[in-house]
Amino acid sequence: MNTLVIRRPDDFHVHLRQGAACSDYSRDALKAGWARVLVMPNTVPPITEPVGLRNYQRNIESAAPGLIPLMTFQIRPEHNEEVIFQLKNAGAIAGKLYPDGVTTNSDTGIRDLRMIYPALEAMEKVGLVMCIHGEEPGAPLMEREERFLKHLKTLQRDFPKLKIVLEHVSSQKGIQAVLDSSSNVAGTITIHHLLFTLDDLAGGKLNPHLFCKPILKSPKDRQAIQEAALSGNPKFFFGSDSAPHPRAEKEGVTAKAGIYTMPVSLSLLVQFFEERGALDRLEPFVSQFGAEFYGLPLNSGKIRLEKEFWTVSKLYHNAVPLMAGERLPWRLASL
Amino acid sequence: MNTLVIRRPDDFHVHLRQGAACSDYSRDALKAGWARVLVMPNTVPPITEPVGLRNYQRNIESAAPGLIPLMTFQIRPEHNEEVIFQLKNAGAIAGKLYPDGVTTNSDTGIRDLRMIYPALEAMEKVGLVMCIHGEEPGAPLMEREERFLKHLKTLQRDFPKLKIVLEHVSSQKGIQAVLDSSSNVAGTITIHHLLFTLDDLAGGKLNPHLFCKPILKSPKDRQAIQEAALSGNPKFFFGSDSAPHPRAEKEGVTAKAGIYTMPVSLSLLVQFFEERGALDRLEPFVSQFGAEFYGLPLNSGKIRLEKEFWTVSKLYHNAVPLMAGERLPWRLASL
Repeated sequence: MNTLVIRRPDDFHVHLRQGAACSDYSRDALKAGWARVLVMPNTVPPITEPVGLRNYQRNIESAAPGLIPLMTFQIRPEHNEEVIFQLKNAGAIAGKLYPDGVTTNSDTGIRDLRMIYPALEAMEKVGLVMCIHGEEPGAPLMEREERFLKHLKTLQRDFPKLKIVLEHVSSQKGIQAVLDSSSNVAGTITIHHLLFTLDDLAGGKLNPHLFCKPILKSPKDRQAIQEAALSGNPKFFFGSDSAPHPRAEKEGVTAKAGIYTMPVSLSLLVQFFEERGALDRLEPFVSQFGAEFYGLPLNSGKIRLEKEFWTVSKLYHNAVPLMAGERLPWRLASL
Repeated sequence: MNTLVIRRPDDFHVHLRQGAACSDYSRDALKAGWARVLVMPNTVPPITEPVGLRNYQRNIESAAPGLIPLMTFQIRPEHNEEVIFQLKNAGAIAGKLYPDGVTTNSDTGIRDLRMIYPALEAMEKVGLVMCIHGEEPGAPLMEREERFLKHLKTLQRDFPKLKIVLEHVSSQKGIQAVLDSSSNVAGTITIHHLLFTLDDLAGGKLNPHLFCKPILKSPKDRQAIQEAALSGNPKFFFGSDSAPHPRAEKEGVTAKAGIYTMPVSLSLLVQFFEERGALDRLEPFVSQFGAEFYGLPLNSGKIRLEKEFWTVSKLYHNAVPLMAGERLPWRLASL
């Protein structure tokens, strides 16, 4: 097959950053073929109230007309029912939980989930989705996701009608926890956890451009993630966690967590599903299951991908993308 | 206690590099208080024959008069009994096995230990120690040491009189394997595996200056290493694996494996043993067990350490050391 036409896809986890960078990365998202993107709220200061949320949404819309930003806010202990209602009215479709200190700009102070129970009650009532960075702060790095999973159980017990997304699932145990949960719980899968392992990050030389949270895991974990993505189970859909950082913050004395995958994720997804003879599973994974879980209409337009090699730029603005300088076999045709 | 006097210590695993860098790092070793250092042979080209070994030894001796380099060679499939005897006569006390591609300059092509059985037979005969970088090439990163341990068993079975050092033990299972072996098998412990875990490397931001092979492991693994070092068991002694790289090769698109610990390892060791009320165990660990295992005389001189804060330089020559810019409580008194 040399041409693939699918319904316009959605990415249910992106970081678009702020200021001029936000304009650049929003336009990258549009150019990369994405119809809608779920925008993470870990800006500085974080998105926590309606005015900030609306302003952020407007910035993105005016930078990249045609791209639909799906807005989120950071769940805070001070959120009462009224604020949650206002956030929903302002356009939020999800609230995001960052346990304290687990990734970039996540010093939330939330060390006990009961601190946000008032917010979760209101979210359940009004039908907002809860997105979770599911890692236990302070646990050993390779076990952080696994150690968080007990909280997923508690949340389901205490908020049985709340829709929950375990984001960027990185381990076999994380996948299993989503499978074992009710239909109110889904998991997003990134392109990097689908394709890479800790060996790619640190098995030979150390590659800071593959450093992310949750950290890449073992071949066995990747296997479970691949099976979930290929399974056609609507509990699993795409969320890239695309997270650009200026090159200087990735190559230096230390490196921040996050991989800029936006420019390449769709191309790599097509390649992944094609190589496994599962191209029919791609469209549900990127263009259907996520929208259905969130109760959004499916996109009406289509995109066309062609089997034609292209070379990934070494730098997008000031960020080094995944696969920088590499040749990829599937190219998005001009829209 | 404000002053500590111990027998001059030995470091049974160092990388001194080549050319001008070798002079610098050899002098650093002397200044840091080490009497003897076991010099790794992974130069370019590697030390594999008597002339190269003698030249390398002379370079080190003339750069740092007073420092005694204990010489090693890289074990090669082409080594026959004659070459091994010549290497011993040239001054080698150990041969080093690098499984193919496990660390910096280790493209040895050795994927099957039977390839070097002629060398090992000769080494056993003539009383040369076998030093092993014990990681299984191609195994998942966190399991490489564990997966190698089966070879340690095979080697003991096939060469019961060969002395073997499992270097830079990084895991609970590696420690256990040394404990379970005969008295001909010892393990060296580095300061970084003694003090740090994967969380220090990648738990917050990624710190390329803590990137090494074998990779830092879990708190449980570190616990086992600490217990071994504190145990007073002569099977465990100090070998730093101090491995300087130019700063540009640690901070960039990728980072090489290796931590430059030479300038700080002794100070950190004193601090570690002191904090655990085990200062009496320090001298055997750094100045006795290693020499005894290798059949070397104990050093006759002493060194004095004083409890006086000093600040680690941010750069030694062109290498960033461990604890760069930090204050450490124990300082080597002038010799």
